[in-house]
Amino acid sequence: MTPVTGTEEDPTTRAYDVVVLGAGPVGENVADRARAGGLSVAVVESELIGGECSYWACMPSKALLRPVAARADARRVPGLKQAVQGPLDAAAVLAHRDYYTSNWKDDGQVGWLESIGADIHRGHGRLAGEKTVVVEGPDGTLTTLTARHAVAVCTGTRAVVPDLPGIADAKPWTSREATSAQAVPGRLVVVGGGVVGVEMATAWQALGSQVTVLVRGEEGLLPRMEPFAGELVREALEEAGATVRTGASVSAVHREGTTVTVTLDGGETLQADEILFAVGRAPRTDDIGLDTVGLKPGSWLDVDDSCRVTGSDWLYAVGDANHRALLTHQGKYQARIAGDVIAARAQGQAVDVAAWGAHSATADHDAVPQVVFSDPEAGSVGLTLAEAERAGRRVRAVDYDLGSVAGAGLYADGYKGRARMVVDLDTETLVGVTFVGPAISELVHSATVAVVGEVPIGRLWHAVPSYPTISEIWLRLLETYRG
Amino acid sequence: MTPVTGTEEDPTTRAYDVVVLGAGPVGENVADRARAGGLSVAVVESELIGGECSYWACMPSKALLRPVAARADARRVPGLKQAVQGPLDAAAVLAHRDYYTSNWKDDGQVGWLESIGADIHRGHGRLAGEKTVVVEGPDGTLTTLTARHAVAVCTGTRAVVPDLPGIADAKPWTSREATSAQAVPGRLVVVGGGVVGVEMATAWQALGSQVTVLVRGEEGLLPRMEPFAGELVREALEEAGATVRTGASVSAVHREGTTVTVTLDGGETLQADEILFAVGRAPRTDDIGLDTVGLKPGSWLDVDDSCRVTGSDWLYAVGDANHRALLTHQGKYQARIAGDVIAARAQGQAVDVAAWGAHSATADHDAVPQVVFSDPEAGSVGLTLAEAERAGRRVRAVDYDLGSVAGAGLYADGYKGRARMVVDLDTETLVGVTFVGPAISELVHSATVAVVGEVPIGRLWHAVPSYPTISEIWLRLLETYRG
Repeated sequence: MTPVTGTEEDPTTRAYDVVVLGAGPVGENVADRARAGGLSVAVVESELIGGECSYWACMPSKALLRPVAARADARRVPGLKQAVQGPLDAAAVLAHRDYYTSNWKDDGQVGWLESIGADIHRGHGRLAGEKTVVVEGPDGTLTTLTARHAVAVCTGTRAVVPDLPGIADAKPWTSREATSAQAVPGRLVVVGGGVVGVEMATAWQALGSQVTVLVRGEEGLLPRMEPFAGELVREALEEAGATVRTGASVSAVHREGTTVTVTLDGGETLQADEILFAVGRAPRTDDIGLDTVGLKPGSWLDVDDSCRVTGSDWLYAVGDANHRALLTHQGKYQARIAGDVIAARAQGQAVDVAAWGAHSATADHDAVPQVVFSDPEAGSVGLTLAEAERAGRRVRAVDYDLGSVAGAGLYADGYKGRARMVVDLDTETLVGVTFVGPAISELVHSATVAVVGEVPIGRLWHAVPSYPTISEIWLRLLETYRG
Repeated sequence: MTPVTGTEEDPTTRAYDVVVLGAGPVGENVADRARAGGLSVAVVESELIGGECSYWACMPSKALLRPVAARADARRVPGLKQAVQGPLDAAAVLAHRDYYTSNWKDDGQVGWLESIGADIHRGHGRLAGEKTVVVEGPDGTLTTLTARHAVAVCTGTRAVVPDLPGIADAKPWTSREATSAQAVPGRLVVVGGGVVGVEMATAWQALGSQVTVLVRGEEGLLPRMEPFAGELVREALEEAGATVRTGASVSAVHREGTTVTVTLDGGETLQADEILFAVGRAPRTDDIGLDTVGLKPGSWLDVDDSCRVTGSDWLYAVGDANHRALLTHQGKYQARIAGDVIAARAQGQAVDVAAWGAHSATADHDAVPQVVFSDPEAGSVGLTLAEAERAGRRVRAVDYDLGSVAGAGLYADGYKGRARMVVDLDTETLVGVTFVGPAISELVHSATVAVVGEVPIGRLWHAVPSYPTISEIWLRLLETYRG
């Protein structure tokens, strides 16, 4: 085993077994598993330890959205609905969100990284040739970190802001401002109908903004999910008072004081107090020295199922940067695997990179779960019907109205929702499952276990949903499949 | 194939392929599957079509309990908690419960049974020798039903009321009155700490009663679940203002007008407006002519995994009456299997009674799920640690504090809960899982799929819970198991 701390002979050079670039949840988990495997680890971070998820994504967005869901739920329950007709107490919600982001301070996360014995290097890290990272500290000092075994790029992504006339002066929101804003804008234009756009439209509309969602194409909201997901979410957003427009492409923005004027293709203009661009993510790999190791700066890094960069035996890319699945939980999954495999390879232990092996992020391919915390919630795992068909699989989709399940009606008066199960007809296992409706977020994992476990339909009949829960949708889907 | 309707040559005798005694969800599902298999079916019911579940159990109890959970959830969410401090609108809740029981009218269920082509015979059915049932109609007329292939006993259970001094005059509540009461009693004594006792204590305390729960033994509430379930539920009931007393055995009851005096062993007395006995269930097999086929009236009927009564080739007992699992959903599961196997046997088709086969209620043994809609909810599937150890299995229990899962904290401020996973160390599969906490009811099915699917721990690592959901408890349990 190699020493767990670096040599300190030269104060500007430190040697580790593993150097991790980026201390978001992904970098933290790579570090954790590599440390558990007995390796010394340096973690380099230029911003807050804890990353996007802790301060500008999952945590604050869920903190903003949970009260929306709880209010919606209460409004659908007799004996309670009168009490919750009023608006949310926005100040209380924002204060709670601040609490969940630790007021954008990272002491807690620093303490955790230290507790596992990882060294933190504050500053901007760049590769400087094979197994070498140079960290430019906040005061400009340079520290060279050498990695005996591996460097893991866990730098994640940033929001894409399109290069439109007036964009810089318009001070647009990205996901960061949308999750950390300290006041409720009177009018908010959201550009983009993906997960970030939908979640932030849901949150701010409920907190008191007048929200307009602009979607460029005609495919509607949540275009990566089954079509009914976006349809049900759009319907609910409109019922909540928001406006959703498809085929609306922004050609220019212009800020004058507190007002942003948004010009659409065709010349129509809208006015708002803030504009959020939620149109995609770009890898934060543009300034990490990729050129020094023969890779293209700003590119997504291509990796194998152990998260090792194609053609390298020491460079890993884990989480968003590899573009396999831009989700915190899936990045953490990759990170556990990458940390373990780095340790195993360093120590010459057996490596299990076969499908579903301990060192293979197999689920990234066809078994990725996702929950959108809109109202209604939308959750899925695996492939949509269209994806499965494109992949050439012989499949059948089975749909069922969630609102007609007894447990759903009892959960919420007038429950509206829908479920789809996509069955592989050759193996009689599930390829994908989608649920849309109130309180489906915890249902998704039952589908994830079924898809990942490759549990055959015949066995799923023996997995009895408790009555009366929303989970009884499983019985209805199986019955519908049997026909 | 046999004709789907009976002969009408003799108006007092009708011939069917299958005669089903009892039209609760279990009888309905046996009928449905037997009809789907091409058999003619008579269903005999002396009370309401739809049974206990529809009118005096699952449906009304969940209708009473859902507002309690929704209010508890809302109270734990910033921006909302002030709005929901007041009491539940009991009149609205009771009216909604009435709606969900169809005001104790069964037209809808009658229509459904007719739509599948089953004949309904109103009255009390009794076996009269092999493959024969005599129905005593409401007007006293007798009709003889003969069954070419099978008779299915789906008569369920009734509440046990102990034979105490004063009991008849005290007009005690059973689960029926507790789920159908039209007014909120000022003081309610609940005798028994099982599921019915706990759920009804939760509901009526929230609706305004002052509830006292009396448990005879010292094992506490929900004694059939992991010990922490009852502990957490007790704590919450007490926080809600109820009183829970263990080691409290009732020796007599006495009603004087609107007041019931309850005497405990030792002589102490309590006063209440109503007293609910929730101390167990007895099979409704005492007056169904079991003696005419050599079985003991009032007994639980012993069956094989196809639900056929031991020693018989035509008599089935499905649901509560066979004592395998006294739960609606599990009875319906048995019913689907029994209806299918009756049809298959009638038509000389292949029967698959191997473990987990289409005609074997295998899940009844070690994979029964249950959700208690208390606050917090308690849900489980499979065996508890104690049950697994008693069964001689080499197991390890892994516990985790649900409140420290990010998704749980975001769901509810101050979330309190706990989870346990019991792992079979020989097969590395799950033997049982228990969750206790707010909003865990839909989590249970993920565990049911894992247990029933016998998904190994190694594969479960690839079933990634979405972040931040309460389901991330799965990751914590796996990490804790790995140690």
